[in-house]
Amino acid sequence: MASKVRLYVEQALGEGQTVSLEKEQAHYLFGVMRLTEGTVVSLFNGRDGEWDAEVAQAGKKAGTLVCVAQTKPLQMPPDLWFYFAPIKKDRTDFIVEKAAEMGAARIIPVQTDFTNSGRVNVERLQAHALEAAEQCGGTYVPEVGEMEKLAKVLDHWDESRQLMFCDEALVGAQEVLMGAGKGPWAILIGPEGGFSEAERVRLKSKPYAHSVSLGPRILRADTAAVAALTVWQQLLGDW
Amino acid sequence: MASKVRLYVEQALGEGQTVSLEKEQAHYLFGVMRLTEGTVVSLFNGRDGEWDAEVAQAGKKAGTLVCVAQTKPLQMPPDLWFYFAPIKKDRTDFIVEKAAEMGAARIIPVQTDFTNSGRVNVERLQAHALEAAEQCGGTYVPEVGEMEKLAKVLDHWDESRQLMFCDEALVGAQEVLMGAGKGPWAILIGPEGGFSEAERVRLKSKPYAHSVSLGPRILRADTAAVAALTVWQQLLGDW
Repeated sequence: MASKVRLYVEQALGEGQTVSLEKEQAHYLFGVMRLTEGTVVSLFNGRDGEWDAEVAQAGKKAGTLVCVAQTKPLQMPPDLWFYFAPIKKDRTDFIVEKAAEMGAARIIPVQTDFTNSGRVNVERLQAHALEAAEQCGGTYVPEVGEMEKLAKVLDHWDESRQLMFCDEALVGAQEVLMGAGKGPWAILIGPEGGFSEAERVRLKSKPYAHSVSLGPRILRADTAAVAALTVWQQLLGDW
Repeated sequence: MASKVRLYVEQALGEGQTVSLEKEQAHYLFGVMRLTEGTVVSLFNGRDGEWDAEVAQAGKKAGTLVCVAQTKPLQMPPDLWFYFAPIKKDRTDFIVEKAAEMGAARIIPVQTDFTNSGRVNVERLQAHALEAAEQCGGTYVPEVGEMEKLAKVLDHWDESRQLMFCDEALVGAQEVLMGAGKGPWAILIGPEGGFSEAERVRLKSKPYAHSVSLGPRILRADTAAVAALTVWQQLLGDW
């Protein structure tokens, strides 16, 4: 059996609710996937959980669906923010996709002293996060924020949120995370060159910031992203 | 300071040992990286640890280096084999890169009932594993094996090796891994469509096979690869 098509929509979802498709969505469902009237697809909007919806009208540039029944309640991810220094385009896209799949609640590109990439296309990254949410069966889409400077992020940090940053630390992640415990957290992944000495000193001076080790090999930033999210989800998150 | 160039070579390494470069290596060091005589680079061969070596002769198509001092002993990864069902080319390359970075000892593509890709280019995958080893500072390069059929792999399984496979399990990885304990292990990552019912039944009948959950969201195969390796390394490996 082919799996049901899963689609993010903006509109409200509820029993009997009619959902009008945008042009690209209609093209995808009826042009690419060749769905016909009566087919059931899966919808979510980040607020109302997941719904089975039946194709009521299928056109080349438009279409409507009618919600039949809720299949999943809204499941919010843990309160975990994910800061990362953008790297090459492909790997940045990949990092955002992985953060969404792994259940980060917010994703924020951050400019550090050794970040080469001065700009990111937030819309493109948001589209990647959305596609990842469609794929992974989540009912929530993490918001991708505008790029911020690390110094400014730290200036305005809410100290009730713990921060795990991955560095050449001697302390294993398990000890650090279990010691600091549950609550709001953030993960910070630096660029390929790591953090500058000034950043390191500043981070280490903060009571909420915890340096953790991710093993004896040097991980690429995209690998470190998934590894750090795994460690956090497994020890403190919803796994 | 720019970081030292790190290169895998086939030859033996030892104090005063002269290493002749192959044509592509000479092109990379002297054409691309513009290194000159006297520059020190980092060499490893998967057997003799890591060595500082000085450029003795730099030509466009050839060159020699002389080993100066050992900078790291050989560090073998834990006895962890990594079986995975190949997916799309890019993501397959990515999985191999990640498995090498994360410290798998052997990497073996495996054909399952729902594997679309019937062939893999083992040489290309081996080159990815090698490049990942160069990047991550490891002194060991995992061997990439020829693709095998899952059924055949299980027919010839050495039962002293535990197998963790990622499935829609109810049991968390921590409980399973800590329960089974240290020793030789393997990880098996299925294709995007998961395992077939027949495969699932067969795997579950094996005393050495352990089904584990990687959280409430459905992870793509490449994400699952890094997440599974992280969980294993953290609980039973060298992190």
